[in-house]
Amino acid sequence: MADRPFSPSAFRQAAREIAAVSERLYQHGWSPATSSNYSARLDQNHCAITVSGRDKGRLTEADVMVVDLDGAPLTDGKPSAETGLHTHLYARFPHAGAVLHTHSLAATVLTMNLPATGSEALILEDYELLKALEGFTTHESSLTIPVLPNDQDISVLAALADQALQAPGTGPAYLIRGHGLYTWASDMASCYRHIEALEFLLAAELERRKLEARQ
Amino acid sequence: MADRPFSPSAFRQAAREIAAVSERLYQHGWSPATSSNYSARLDQNHCAITVSGRDKGRLTEADVMVVDLDGAPLTDGKPSAETGLHTHLYARFPHAGAVLHTHSLAATVLTMNLPATGSEALILEDYELLKALEGFTTHESSLTIPVLPNDQDISVLAALADQALQAPGTGPAYLIRGHGLYTWASDMASCYRHIEALEFLLAAELERRKLEARQ
Amino acid sequence: MADRPFSPSAFRQAAREIAAVSERLYQHGWSPATSSNYSARLDQNHCAITVSGRDKGRLTEADVMVVDLDGAPLTDGKPSAETGLHTHLYARFPHAGAVLHTHSLAATVLTMNLPATGSEALILEDYELLKALEGFTTHESSLTIPVLPNDQDISVLAALADQALQAPGTGPAYLIRGHGLYTWASDMASCYRHIEALEFLLAAELERRKLEARQ
Amino acid sequence: MADRPFSPSAFRQAAREIAAVSERLYQHGWSPATSSNYSARLDQNHCAITVSGRDKGRLTEADVMVVDLDGAPLTDGKPSAETGLHTHLYARFPHAGAVLHTHSLAATVLTMNLPATGSEALILEDYELLKALEGFTTHESSLTIPVLPNDQDISVLAALADQALQAPGTGPAYLIRGHGLYTWASDMASCYRHIEALEFLLAAELERRKLEARQ
Repeated sequence: MADRPFSPSAFRQAAREIAAVSERLYQHGWSPATSSNYSARLDQNHCAITVSGRDKGRLTEADVMVVDLDGAPLTDGKPSAETGLHTHLYARFPHAGAVLHTHSLAATVLTMNLPATGSEALILEDYELLKALEGFTTHESSLTIPVLPNDQDISVLAALADQALQAPGTGPAYLIRGHGLYTWASDMASCYRHIEALEFLLAAELERRKLEARQ
Repeated sequence: MADRPFSPSAFRQAAREIAAVSERLYQHGWSPATSSNYSARLDQNHCAITVSGRDKGRLTEADVMVVDLDGAPLTDGKPSAETGLHTHLYARFPHAGAVLHTHSLAATVLTMNLPATGSEALILEDYELLKALEGFTTHESSLTIPVLPNDQDISVLAALADQALQAPGTGPAYLIRGHGLYTWASDMASCYRHIEALEFLLAAELERRKLEARQ
Repeated sequence: MADRPFSPSAFRQAAREIAAVSERLYQHGWSPATSSNYSARLDQNHCAITVSGRDKGRLTEADVMVVDLDGAPLTDGKPSAETGLHTHLYARFPHAGAVLHTHSLAATVLTMNLPATGSEALILEDYELLKALEGFTTHESSLTIPVLPNDQDISVLAALADQALQAPGTGPAYLIRGHGLYTWASDMASCYRHIEALEFLLAAELERRKLEARQ
Repeated sequence: MADRPFSPSAFRQAAREIAAVSERLYQHGWSPATSSNYSARLDQNHCAITVSGRDKGRLTEADVMVVDLDGAPLTDGKPSAETGLHTHLYARFPHAGAVLHTHSLAATVLTMNLPATGSEALILEDYELLKALEGFTTHESSLTIPVLPNDQDISVLAALADQALQAPGTGPAYLIRGHGLYTWASDMASCYRHIEALEFLLAAELERRKLEARQ
């Protein structure tokens, strides 16, 4: 599968995009304490991904490496511990060109305080900003975001994600409990737009839950 | 109506003002995920407006174009999908020189969690910051901000706005449910001041609703 | 009283300090929409103060002017509408070297949602950060911050402040309902420290009120 | 104990690291009004620590000095009033290379609104971000953070900390009521990561308490 080599110039371009997006995501407060990981597809068999444990507020191109879609490193470095969730998405969605995983306060709090029933998913409706997601053209849409239980075994999480994304109404996103958000898109600019839209919507949901008990 | 050409230097000046204001609005967090759109009047028949779908955190003068007040483009680009709401305001208010539309958390949450009755408007009273709005000289004022239901048909929204702004007590602002805020003023600096004042007041209203249930 | 001229170099120094502090206060979000005003004492009879209605996120030395302690302008410009509250403090407290007035969300919301009784003052206790205020050496202190009703007549507000500050337990601060915070100190650096401490404490009080209903 | 002199180059390196970390901590809003203090170990007997009362948003290398582990100054300046809490940690934990103390809104509010029982500690569980702490490898961990009563006598606080850290389940952190957070790590980069992780977790706990009353 990795017989064909990756393109060094595509790698450099991806590394630059990842470093640029990292600065913005950290500034938003969504990637504290070396959490989060980001990747961009290079070709059918390779992606560029953040090296494990790097400070996302200080990320440079040197903190990005190449893996094949089995997660095997092709350049120096130890890839993110969650590489398997990125490669799963590239394998499953041939048109996915970028994957971003953030670790925000809203995602953490919402997924840890879900009601006992219905905790398998968050459903977002009637928000104008749903239109920022690829494939959504009206606020009169409903987006189901699966919420997976957290697990230190990434292959378990990948299998859970694979199954959850078969449910009707899902879009380009899932959450992991107490952990954060995954989203993907055709390219990095769209994927960054997804993150901004989804983190806004999660923050809105959190605010609404604070209000709702009293009306 | 668009027989007279627009002034290229007025366009360049407007584009610079829009790019500068965009940077500030994005920094405040009020324009995520390519949402929001901004315009400035050039003359009786033309305005400069943001091109559709651009990242408001990276906006440059090249992301601004000219339309006439029927919304027809006079320079390259596809104007914002909500151009019709801008041109409606320029047509209705001859002294309006700038229109800003933002998409904040407070505006979204407040408009989606209005009580079942009285959801047609938000009424703001006793705030010193009401004085930041053109035409308001004392905190002992009352501002009625109409809340329109969201709609993907912009002409429907424009008609709703037109009607809602006839109600007594309205000022230079309306809200769209789950979507955001529109405000206008005689020039861009005043319009930016309106946005800062109104977004502050919406945030204050949101905080007060969280407190009110318990007193 | 203003027979002796002010020192131009003292004015330039004060204008620089005010512009520098304005940038920080705006960044904190405490001075939206041209609200807030700042001053520094030049001598026994004069102070430098912000010109009325300027954007605090873009303030320069050119946005600062000189008034005497009767509020009469000695350089070009229209002084802040609230000049009388600054000059009142310089006259009342001979050691006051700087006065800062901010307009934060926490100050606005707290003063508009005070309980019906006891609304004349906010009492802060047991906070380590009380030690950031001049004259406070332990967290085992109690600070009474008077809350004045808002009024567009500045001489009425000055008289209310004068009276309220006679109450025991008051320190270098008062609030105006729906409007904001005034604090003063021996010099600008200390006054800025006061603002950071007091705005932190107001934000903490607001958070605590959200929590308290449920324990 | 301080017979052996400290290394000037190690001091300069530590001062640079402290100034760099101070800028980030202040930007996060965790060190207002000259609060907070930071240190880095130089060798077995010395550490570099912030000078008392400096503005953490403007900290430079000149605001850092050397003390021995008895707190005696070896360079010019008056060390932070809380130096004794830093030296206690270096003495107790031979591998501690850096100590950071912040003063955040979440730490203040959480410690002042603890329930009457169980107020001696905050227990954090199931958060993915626990893995950002040295010695924690899974979110299925439980971290006990002791909460000490505030005291102006630093030797009393040091003794309380010493005792509280003997309890099972504690990690590299404790809180002081109405005051803030202490954490330590093998080096400054790890200690900064601890702060980002712990402040995130405290903010999450605060949000969850706001939600919990209503489910």
